[in-house]
Amino acid sequence: MEYETPLFFRVMQYAADADRDVIDMVSGNPDWEPPSALREGLREYADLEPDAFQYPASEGLADLREEIAARRGVDAEQVVVTNGAGEANYLAMARALERDRGDEILLTDPVYPYYPGKTAMLGGRQTYVSARENGQLEPGVVREAASEETGAILINTPNNPTGAVYPEETMRELVAIAEDNDAVLISDEVYDHFDLSGQFASALGVDSDHRIVTNAFSKSMAITGVRVGYAVFPETLVENAKSRHMLVNVATTRPGQYAVLQALRETDPDYYERNRDLLRERVDTFTNALEAAGAEYTTPQGSFYVMARFEGLSGTLENTFELIDEAGVAGMPGETFGESRRDWFRFALVTPRVEEAAERLAAYFE
Amino acid sequence: MEYETPLFFRVMQYAADADRDVIDMVSGNPDWEPPSALREGLREYADLEPDAFQYPASEGLADLREEIAARRGVDAEQVVVTNGAGEANYLAMARALERDRGDEILLTDPVYPYYPGKTAMLGGRQTYVSARENGQLEPGVVREAASEETGAILINTPNNPTGAVYPEETMRELVAIAEDNDAVLISDEVYDHFDLSGQFASALGVDSDHRIVTNAFSKSMAITGVRVGYAVFPETLVENAKSRHMLVNVATTRPGQYAVLQALRETDPDYYERNRDLLRERVDTFTNALEAAGAEYTTPQGSFYVMARFEGLSGTLENTFELIDEAGVAGMPGETFGESRRDWFRFALVTPRVEEAAERLAAYFE
Repeated sequence: MEYETPLFFRVMQYAADADRDVIDMVSGNPDWEPPSALREGLREYADLEPDAFQYPASEGLADLREEIAARRGVDAEQVVVTNGAGEANYLAMARALERDRGDEILLTDPVYPYYPGKTAMLGGRQTYVSARENGQLEPGVVREAASEETGAILINTPNNPTGAVYPEETMRELVAIAEDNDAVLISDEVYDHFDLSGQFASALGVDSDHRIVTNAFSKSMAITGVRVGYAVFPETLVENAKSRHMLVNVATTRPGQYAVLQALRETDPDYYERNRDLLRERVDTFTNALEAAGAEYTTPQGSFYVMARFEGLSGTLENTFELIDEAGVAGMPGETFGESRRDWFRFALVTPRVEEAAERLAAYFE
Repeated sequence: MEYETPLFFRVMQYAADADRDVIDMVSGNPDWEPPSALREGLREYADLEPDAFQYPASEGLADLREEIAARRGVDAEQVVVTNGAGEANYLAMARALERDRGDEILLTDPVYPYYPGKTAMLGGRQTYVSARENGQLEPGVVREAASEETGAILINTPNNPTGAVYPEETMRELVAIAEDNDAVLISDEVYDHFDLSGQFASALGVDSDHRIVTNAFSKSMAITGVRVGYAVFPETLVENAKSRHMLVNVATTRPGQYAVLQALRETDPDYYERNRDLLRERVDTFTNALEAAGAEYTTPQGSFYVMARFEGLSGTLENTFELIDEAGVAGMPGETFGESRRDWFRFALVTPRVEEAAERLAAYFE
């Protein structure tokens, strides 16, 4: 099984053990503040009566599901509150495979490394569809790859690691391809609040019994450790997903759900806009410095990663360690994300030191 | 798939909708206070820096794993912190089946209804082994049922619903049976702090590569909704279990882990003793009143349930509704727990009104 976290921990550990100052751009952990209402929600929860510490409804607190449903324009019955996007994707993929319409899952190359790991664990077969150099996904290429063997098409927009945001037309086409092949489009939209392009189009915009949307508050509220996410299923698919959720986890953590609900209700749109502005600034700073250094790089339309390529240093784990030791910058090896990016590194813009990082890289490659 | 929660919610809903006052003895939700250090831990967490809101290590916060390991006399490497005992049991069962030594899971009758549901979801086959009338499990009967088809033997001590606590000799024998059949004994010990008999013996007391122990803080700290539990695996089995945990959930909620660690460190043994005393009192009160009413009943050695049988009223869902409407007491139908208890009802001692409940039942059956 292949998955990101151990590698990601190995890289972070290596950086922590290094004999020098290292700028950490490894993980997808935001370094900015959670909403203050989130903190306040946890404080309030701590003082509730004992019955508030007991099992919530398995599919999630009713008020939270309704709040999510209202925001996403779906029925609350379609929403399952999960242990982050991690569980949401697991439930969605399991549900698609349970339909017994095909055990193949179409993934993109580059890919978020958890997806192949989950596919293998669930007994599915993965087939990779190449994204373009700019990270966009050609629906025609997906249509060619899809067949009656295809159980699911799993995409991520805004994309980790490419930063691509798929336009509405792509989303519409992908749903149509799922329908035409009696498969399910699974759209992981966990970076939706980090659309920097204004192009983001949720798969929920296309009504269909053949698409599942997953999401979480992990990135939008800077709380990857709290573990509250959700999936929106078509009515025809939701019941079995609820059963699996119950049989695996019983329910998602209640203090987390309580605090997220509070934060959803009370957090001003400014909070999200400020974080996008911060990211825009970091993208500019980091890519300008890379440009000045003559490196090749991506400019993300969304999510919070920049990929960069340096002459003569391929994106292996070994070279990632070299960049830590010699340049003092820790990224992720591009090969983790698939064949197509093996000459690249991924840098997460989750540190205020992005300019310094780019300068260090420039100095190293000078 | 068969599982407890929907039925359990149906019964609670029915009780809530009833046109009269109903004493709720349906769920396994404690009605007593969580440790004050648990509340304090949540409050403290709410004020931590943003990095404390990000992903903990997938297998759990290092300090929490070490605290658990020290208390249980195992190596921290063997401990996976899970989303409650629910996920712990799921991981344990999946891990046992992944060994490909047999797809049968031996369950007891009566059984905790999540176990057959999980077995079916994981593609296993269930075989029931009858417990004795008093809830004890005869190792000889288990040995007879076990074979090379057996992947796991799943037990629960102190037991829900019977209240039986298996003696050390039984535990030793069950581990030996697992070893002799190259299977895995999974011992769910989530009620270990509610051993009222002094007889409780953890499967961890028998060193073996063929046993997994699952547990949680849900009952011991009266926090079923916080979702923090753990499983202790043999070193030979732990790696794959960690992978599955990561691929399904990424990690368990960090505020919950933080608060549980605080509570483990700072909660006096008195807290647990007080809750046991409360339960002992409720067992006495409830069973004395049932005795006076001439009903048949169990006296739990542990856990917090009493089963009762009433002349002429079998333990069906329909009759459970009748008891709600006519007696004003809500329990769980015995048939939920298996064939052997279909004439019984289960009453959870999670209300201060146990005497009144028994009197209502007595009056109804008079």
